[in-house]
Amino acid sequence: MKTLYLIGMGPGSPEYLTMQAINALKQVNVFFMLEKEGRGKAELLEMRQTILTHYLGNTGYRVVMATSPARAKTVDYQNDVQVWHDEKRALFAQLVADELTDGQIGAFLLWGDPSLYDQTVSLIADLTAHSAGQLEFTIIPGITSIQVLTAKHKIPLNRVGESITITTGRHVETCDPTEINNAVVMLDYNASFQRFTGQNMDVYWGGYLGCADEVLMAGAIDEVRDDLLRIKSQVRDEKGWLMDIYLLRRRTNSAE
Amino acid sequence: MKTLYLIGMGPGSPEYLTMQAINALKQVNVFFMLEKEGRGKAELLEMRQTILTHYLGNTGYRVVMATSPARAKTVDYQNDVQVWHDEKRALFAQLVADELTDGQIGAFLLWGDPSLYDQTVSLIADLTAHSAGQLEFTIIPGITSIQVLTAKHKIPLNRVGESITITTGRHVETCDPTEINNAVVMLDYNASFQRFTGQNMDVYWGGYLGCADEVLMAGAIDEVRDDLLRIKSQVRDEKGWLMDIYLLRRRTNSAE
Ligand SMILES: C[S@@+](CC[C@H](N)C(=O)[O-])C[C@H]1O[C@@H](n2cnc3c(N)ncnc32)[C@H](O)[C@@H]1O
Ligand SMILES: C[S@@+](CC[C@H](N)C(=O)[O-])C[C@H]1O[C@@H](n2cnc3c(N)ncnc32)[C@H](O)[C@@H]1O
Repeated sequence: MKTLYLIGMGPGSPEYLTMQAINALKQVNVFFMLEKEGRGKAELLEMRQTILTHYLGNTGYRVVMATSPARAKTVDYQNDVQVWHDEKRALFAQLVADELTDGQIGAFLLWGDPSLYDQTVSLIADLTAHSAGQLEFTIIPGITSIQVLTAKHKIPLNRVGESITITTGRHVETCDPTEINNAVVMLDYNASFQRFTGQNMDVYWGGYLGCADEVLMAGAIDEVRDDLLRIKSQVRDEKGWLMDIYLLRRRTNSAE
Repeated sequence: MKTLYLIGMGPGSPEYLTMQAINALKQVNVFFMLEKEGRGKAELLEMRQTILTHYLGNTGYRVVMATSPARAKTVDYQNDVQVWHDEKRALFAQLVADELTDGQIGAFLLWGDPSLYDQTVSLIADLTAHSAGQLEFTIIPGITSIQVLTAKHKIPLNRVGESITITTGRHVETCDPTEINNAVVMLDYNASFQRFTGQNMDVYWGGYLGCADEVLMAGAIDEVRDDLLRIKSQVRDEKGWLMDIYLLRRRTNSAE
């Protein structure tokens, strides 16, 4: 029997790890470090390495690096995702077979919380289901970028009794803007908050949250839109990559 | 200047605290412990006390207990909420005035994450805004019950590219069931998952997550509904109170 821990590391800094995650780290034999090729790769790997050094020192564990397959971007999105997942699942299977011996524990340090826009859980669940009892896994929750966004802006995620939507840039790029009242947007590569001007809405934005270069901006979309576009392109130019998230909130007339 | 820390404690067990939260605890002079009157009160207070003892021992801080005002339940929900918030804000103001001296740090240990269905953030933000610079506050994120729900069921919160809704029992009690595809339901006192039978949907349910009495159940709603109703009433009878949450997910035909 081999074991995998999918450990939520929070969004960057070692201080976001829970005590449960820290205790789990101490049991791990092999850490698998996967990143996509790209401008942020070195920095994202370094943050993981910093966490290991911070809590474990430099000995007693092995680190195995691998390049995470990238999703092809053809017109057939569904097929691209399918191929990408097959490649990623095969890579996981190979790492488990080659790098872990029976009785050992391997781990992935997953950004934020493992459940949120990260397909590692589903892929490892597939592998486990087909392992004839030879592989098991445990998920350890982590602080999401959403929670750091609201904490830094000092706002609640919802007003009294209100629902919250968590969605993607891909969705808000084309949805009817009036359908959005209170939504967190992740994975937005096209600054789709621009579609919400003239809608009496506020935006609460954060880039590189919880990391050394954290940037925050908030205000009425109609007023801050241009500044936000400017800041986004400025920080992206400086660092070569950008990780950002925002909350869109429609104003109401109630005192809340 | 006085300072308040709103510390996300996660859903129960000390192991859910982050290192950031633990470091914050160590700076606090006074912990405010507020709970509503009710069957779960003693246990919920005890879990907070266990966290303090676990990380701080029994000395070096003060604990101030107060009974949190309850919301009246008349036909006028908006007004009930308004009155309730006014009372709660007044209580916070009084605690800060009477129990903290200048330069001191007070803290609330908030269940789960402070941003999620908890109005403490808004009320303290109001007080701070009207304090003429004499009060400031910091929010420290915590693991939500949602993250423990998905971790324990070993599922992702969203399928590929999918949006997620976080909503209340109050909402799903009356909404059009076909509008729900992937939603987390909190604060449900009427087992409203029953409204989703015959809809080709799964439910992933958890009670007392992260606590000693944790219970899990999952399956097609059409199949598990009766068992789930039975388990809910059984555990509620045994303990005298129940804290539960669930994810409703519509099945799709895709391989995902
Ligand atoms: C593939 S998803 C993974 C989310 C992660 N599991 C979590 O819990 O935050 C990546 C997206 O999360 C958001 N994100 C993650 N970390 C962030 C950070 N530190 N600052 C801002 N946004 C972040 C961005 O929207 C980014 O496109
Ligand atoms: C007032 S809200 C507060 C939520 C909290 N801030 C959080 O982050 O989880 C209370 C609701 O959260 C859910 N909840 C909180 N803790 C839970 C637990 N340990 N197990 C199951 N549900 C929980 C229940 O739906 C409950 O009605």
